[in-house]
Amino acid sequence: MQVGVRREQRAGERRVAATPETVLQLRALGLDVAVESNAGAGAGYADAAFAAAGASIVPELIAESLDVLLHVRPLEPETAAGLRPGTVSIGFASPASELPGVRALAAAGVTSFALELVPRISRAQSMDALSSQSLVSGYRAVLEAALRYPRFFPLYMTAAGTIPPARVLVLGAGVAGLQAIGTAKRLGARVSANDIRAASADEVASMGGTFIHLDLDTRTADPSAEGSGGYARELGEDRAKRQRALLAPHVAAADVLITTAAIPGRAAPLLVTTEMVAGMRAGSVVVDLAAESGGNVEGVIAGRDLQIPVDGGSVTLVGLQDAASAMPSDASRLFAKNVANLLALMTADGKVVPDFDDEVVAASCLTHGGSVRHAATAEALEAFK
Amino acid sequence: MQVGVRREQRAGERRVAATPETVLQLRALGLDVAVESNAGAGAGYADAAFAAAGASIVPELIAESLDVLLHVRPLEPETAAGLRPGTVSIGFASPASELPGVRALAAAGVTSFALELVPRISRAQSMDALSSQSLVSGYRAVLEAALRYPRFFPLYMTAAGTIPPARVLVLGAGVAGLQAIGTAKRLGARVSANDIRAASADEVASMGGTFIHLDLDTRTADPSAEGSGGYARELGEDRAKRQRALLAPHVAAADVLITTAAIPGRAAPLLVTTEMVAGMRAGSVVVDLAAESGGNVEGVIAGRDLQIPVDGGSVTLVGLQDAASAMPSDASRLFAKNVANLLALMTADGKVVPDFDDEVVAASCLTHGGSVRHAATAEALEAFK
Repeated sequence: MQVGVRREQRAGERRVAATPETVLQLRALGLDVAVESNAGAGAGYADAAFAAAGASIVPELIAESLDVLLHVRPLEPETAAGLRPGTVSIGFASPASELPGVRALAAAGVTSFALELVPRISRAQSMDALSSQSLVSGYRAVLEAALRYPRFFPLYMTAAGTIPPARVLVLGAGVAGLQAIGTAKRLGARVSANDIRAASADEVASMGGTFIHLDLDTRTADPSAEGSGGYARELGEDRAKRQRALLAPHVAAADVLITTAAIPGRAAPLLVTTEMVAGMRAGSVVVDLAAESGGNVEGVIAGRDLQIPVDGGSVTLVGLQDAASAMPSDASRLFAKNVANLLALMTADGKVVPDFDDEVVAASCLTHGGSVRHAATAEALEAFK
Repeated sequence: MQVGVRREQRAGERRVAATPETVLQLRALGLDVAVESNAGAGAGYADAAFAAAGASIVPELIAESLDVLLHVRPLEPETAAGLRPGTVSIGFASPASELPGVRALAAAGVTSFALELVPRISRAQSMDALSSQSLVSGYRAVLEAALRYPRFFPLYMTAAGTIPPARVLVLGAGVAGLQAIGTAKRLGARVSANDIRAASADEVASMGGTFIHLDLDTRTADPSAEGSGGYARELGEDRAKRQRALLAPHVAAADVLITTAAIPGRAAPLLVTTEMVAGMRAGSVVVDLAAESGGNVEGVIAGRDLQIPVDGGSVTLVGLQDAASAMPSDASRLFAKNVANLLALMTADGKVVPDFDDEVVAASCLTHGGSVRHAATAEALEAFK
């Protein structure tokens, strides 16, 4: 069977859905692999390396000849429309926001797997691309902050005096947040963090951060804030307001603020108002990793650095965009492995045959046989019509 | 007496030669301080903060009313020419390369102190701006490299496989090099380093790096490579060639190369040829901290990123410029402290009276009473005429 690896089309996207290493893995499963020429160029994987691993390099993938299409970013509706019925596609699909693409996949009869839907169970960890890419973006967020911060992160005791360590505050302690905590800590900063999920306190501590307990409703933490799959749930507006009020002094005390709060399929929660940013010291840096989904920080613009005037200077507000794609070699390495592992789960004897009795296969499937299998997306699509 | 703090003129220079903290220190010595408005704006020190520390804020410094002028970058000849005879100036002077400025300082009868000339003895450590600024640029070089490197620095063991740590090679183990070693190590990289001074092996090890011993002339190290003040001396061309040949395999094995080799008053030594860079893997990053003084890497251009074609892609060659100025708050904090400490050394009872019997004062003085006191510079100036 023919597996195609796409050269990504979206501007700024440097990742690729396969690497020479995963081509070897797929070949060992008995699959043929065609890689669009230069598909890996942006990530540092040359055509020659793919060819050496046994892939054929093609100028353009021929949709009619593909059994499986591997991709990073959601397929455009016109690409989805060109696929043969029964083609298996694996990649990100952004089912909550890319409804025209979902509809096109369903209409074309594609059996599409959305990596966002991979369940957060231990057996599926090796296929969890949201986690693997968050690992990259959490690390990256700290580098981007450190580069813009006009001071050191670590403590220095020098002959010309002592430089205190930077105080870094991380909001949202999912994979990206924990990684940001760990990286800032490595660099020598003093790190504190908050997450509305009470369970994250231990994880924050294990990465070297100090957990900030907010008394949101007279209890120290609210187990109901944890939604399915370990992700956070949305707070009611009253509690969200109280959350911001309680966070304000911590934000004001921070030199560097990194926000990573996301709710799957929803706009990012507003955690930090412009007023809160205005309370920070001049020279402070705010990096909003949720900028692409609306932002945790009021007024943030994805892909832009804004200077927010404060007493005596300004605060730099960074709307981080394509954070994982900015470290394309390792991001692709992990992503490609996630994709190959999911594909391996549905491949036997050189044939790709999704078994919907497997809970990982069943949960990850977005469209199949002409319909949308993922209930929430099907509902959204109904409403969208 | 009136001390003036200059708003730096050079494009890209964001540092300032005083901070509110050092204004307090100078005021305590009985000195008046005038700060040019917005002198600290680029470094995050607002006029209001200087005023609160007791400085007067002036639109422009009046040369005739100054007893002392504090600056970061070498004074332009026309600025030097405008100073009153007997004015004391303290800042960088680049005596080896800014000869017209030196001549103008001498002609104007300025008593100028060049921070490059502060002797490397323990009593003068708190005035050593070359060291304090190298601390900043060494740290900065690693951030700049990490941001451009398409992979992680640290080792990661993830559900989707293990990511090996980046291999970082640092050439030149002075203050900047040691700081780069320490910072790369903090970030989780595997770090090795070389310096032609045998004494640096222990320092490299103390920062967590592995010292690479090069057998330059059948002995493992050459004590003659250490010049005065702990700086490296220039190698003969034969030994320099042999050094490059011995370094080549280490360069080829590195993912990230940071070069920091400088020889005071001379062009930076060529350590890495284009051929050596071409032997590196695609995606590797080279940061040359010596780019402004000619570069350790062949073909480097200060202030530019170059893509050097290699097998399967390219290597990014970064000519780092104004590295210390890119972290202006802490760089200024240390620099201002160095300047204030040197000024304090020659101030008694509210009067600035350089005592040339003090070895630090004597060694740091570049021009005085109409002549050039620093012998090597005086010779160069003779030759330059």
